[in-house]
Amino acid sequence: MKSFSTRGETIPSSPIRKLAPMAAKAAAEGIKIYHLNIGQPDLPTPKKAIDAVRNIARETLEYSPSQGIASLREKMSGFYRRHGIDVNPDEIIVTTGGSEAVLFTFMAVLNPGDEVIITEPAYANYISFSMLAGAVVKPVTTRIEDGFALPPVEEIEKLIGPKTKALLICNPNNPTGYIYSPEEMEKIRQLTMRNDIFLIADEVYSDFNFSGREYVSAMHLKGIEQNVVMVDSMSKRYSECGIRIGAIVTKNERLRQILMKFCQARLSPPLLGQIVAEASIEGTEDYAREVFEEYRERRDFFIRGLNAIPGVYSPQPQGAFYTIASLPVEDAEDFCKWCLTDFCYRDEVDPGVDAQGRPYRGETIMMAPAAGFYSTPGMGRNQARLAYVLKTEDLARALKVLAKALEEYNAR
Amino acid sequence: MKSFSTRGETIPSSPIRKLAPMAAKAAAEGIKIYHLNIGQPDLPTPKKAIDAVRNIARETLEYSPSQGIASLREKMSGFYRRHGIDVNPDEIIVTTGGSEAVLFTFMAVLNPGDEVIITEPAYANYISFSMLAGAVVKPVTTRIEDGFALPPVEEIEKLIGPKTKALLICNPNNPTGYIYSPEEMEKIRQLTMRNDIFLIADEVYSDFNFSGREYVSAMHLKGIEQNVVMVDSMSKRYSECGIRIGAIVTKNERLRQILMKFCQARLSPPLLGQIVAEASIEGTEDYAREVFEEYRERRDFFIRGLNAIPGVYSPQPQGAFYTIASLPVEDAEDFCKWCLTDFCYRDEVDPGVDAQGRPYRGETIMMAPAAGFYSTPGMGRNQARLAYVLKTEDLARALKVLAKALEEYNAR
Repeated sequence: MKSFSTRGETIPSSPIRKLAPMAAKAAAEGIKIYHLNIGQPDLPTPKKAIDAVRNIARETLEYSPSQGIASLREKMSGFYRRHGIDVNPDEIIVTTGGSEAVLFTFMAVLNPGDEVIITEPAYANYISFSMLAGAVVKPVTTRIEDGFALPPVEEIEKLIGPKTKALLICNPNNPTGYIYSPEEMEKIRQLTMRNDIFLIADEVYSDFNFSGREYVSAMHLKGIEQNVVMVDSMSKRYSECGIRIGAIVTKNERLRQILMKFCQARLSPPLLGQIVAEASIEGTEDYAREVFEEYRERRDFFIRGLNAIPGVYSPQPQGAFYTIASLPVEDAEDFCKWCLTDFCYRDEVDPGVDAQGRPYRGETIMMAPAAGFYSTPGMGRNQARLAYVLKTEDLARALKVLAKALEEYNAR
Repeated sequence: MKSFSTRGETIPSSPIRKLAPMAAKAAAEGIKIYHLNIGQPDLPTPKKAIDAVRNIARETLEYSPSQGIASLREKMSGFYRRHGIDVNPDEIIVTTGGSEAVLFTFMAVLNPGDEVIITEPAYANYISFSMLAGAVVKPVTTRIEDGFALPPVEEIEKLIGPKTKALLICNPNNPTGYIYSPEEMEKIRQLTMRNDIFLIADEVYSDFNFSGREYVSAMHLKGIEQNVVMVDSMSKRYSECGIRIGAIVTKNERLRQILMKFCQARLSPPLLGQIVAEASIEGTEDYAREVFEEYRERRDFFIRGLNAIPGVYSPQPQGAFYTIASLPVEDAEDFCKWCLTDFCYRDEVDPGVDAQGRPYRGETIMMAPAAGFYSTPGMGRNQARLAYVLKTEDLARALKVLAKALEEYNAR
């Protein structure tokens, strides 16, 4: 009788996870690895935010309210209002990261067998969360040759059937960096209204819009207020991924009531994270501007450098801090593994020492093979996702190492 | 098409949740409420643990490993070893509270339609988590007249069918305070082995064994190591419910692999909570002894006081910090509500002032009606769950107020 659940057996490991043991081995062998594989910013958290826990006056670290601390929700509401999103604190549920926000939203909306439409390539954990809910992802493929733009809305509408409950968009997009234009958002609005489905909008990268164009949030769309659920997070905005504070924002009261049942079952979001989050929101305008400029510069530098490598192509990402690039290889997964298992670059530049003070003997790069971001088999085989969260001098080295790796890999 | 999931519609609100608006109204009207309804200890967190975040030297609050910080898992392993449980750090997965530990274990083991056997009265959130997994709870009723002891093992075995995947025990028990004897644990061991089901043991109150008898953890049982999953938490042990740090401990490697897929999807447990948890485990032996003595005194005082109220009966809880008591009323839920809506006690003792400095006009009590802890309809109607986490002087007042409330309620 002792057997595991179907979801347990079938949920895929994350695309990066398979490479982790190889990366650990390379690191143990004295190779310096540039981590282009994960969106872990190296920028500092606002000092003011960390100081809030440094100065904590509490004697007991007790449960906080299941919906989140009221004063945090008030500050979040103020933040949204400054971005033209009219929500009050009651319409915000604080979650344990954006991850819990996605999981709980799926759990509230999707029955086993129900379908959610998601553009691909997509953040791989959407697949895991949909499988935890027993639901089915229907992918809408976006293509590198179109710069990962939304395909014609008719292509999406074709996928809508009696079991379709929701369309999920990630905007700005992880992994492509694409941002939906006002015209595309209007089409999404009409499609949502016409079919009366939920529109789940993961907008955790909304601060990072480098396009120069107006950013349209799903919360800005008129006439579908009862359909829209926004997923948000403090992680990327304030470089505080570890505090695990996100949010579900929706005007749909019945949906909030259902979500609150799940929130009550898990008792409360992390108290200390909420204290950091609350201190992050106000008085950090200069920080936000600096971070924005820093990421824009990194993007400009990194994408230019990528496209200068023979055979590599990356569209210009408009937001977030990722890109999907095509590489001059047949099987990017094999290449990503090879970079960790069979490659070590060394030139006249001293790669320095590791955390234990041991000198590195060379350098390599870690990237996420893109096939894991597609649901459609065979898609993205020659692509990789690259995060440009490292400082520019590290990105410069990473680009040089990538160019050499491709040269050597293809010369084998 | 816009509709909610069946689990969303059917998961019950927590037993306490329904009373919350009434409690808020009473508080707003100047009534001091003694919260016997929730296991939120008023004891301080170890100062050493809070100091660990006060002295945090990090500049970026980044993701921690999905399995939890290695040094925390090492200290947890040491703690378990000191309690005769032989686990290494690899066999521990750090979770976002004991709540996530239960949810992920259910998700890994139970398919929709599968069954998990749980003694009732039971921690109400087990029901929510099983419904999130689509599974069915089969209750084994324990009775107040038996002191909530495990019923004959044949009664449990009768419930085991082809869909039964697991038996969940909460030991020491929330809500009854019962602790399984070595003989009962041996019967559970045999039953688990005979049927080859999972034994999920929620042992978050294991430090609070006031029975004077040896405590037998499910992790101590020989021959069923591959079947046992222990759920643990730092919340109650160190009075730090808000940090949201728990753990899943199991020797079953395949189960850990599956759980890690869920853990990777939610990225990481809270970083700051892990820092507090790590600092809590060592050098807090005096703290643990004081807390233990304090709870034992509170228990002795409170249960004696309860049983001195005419018509009230509570077995002596052997552990945790709850009891289920029967009250001289027909409908305990109605009585619990009435205490918040129609009752206010005032004697010669000045009830003091609220957090805003406004004088209270009287006192009342908040309790959790016990029916919500049973799956079997009609059970526990005249019972309530009472937590004895308040300081003794508050418990003394709460007992006086409860006695008066029962008198007045029954004299209506």
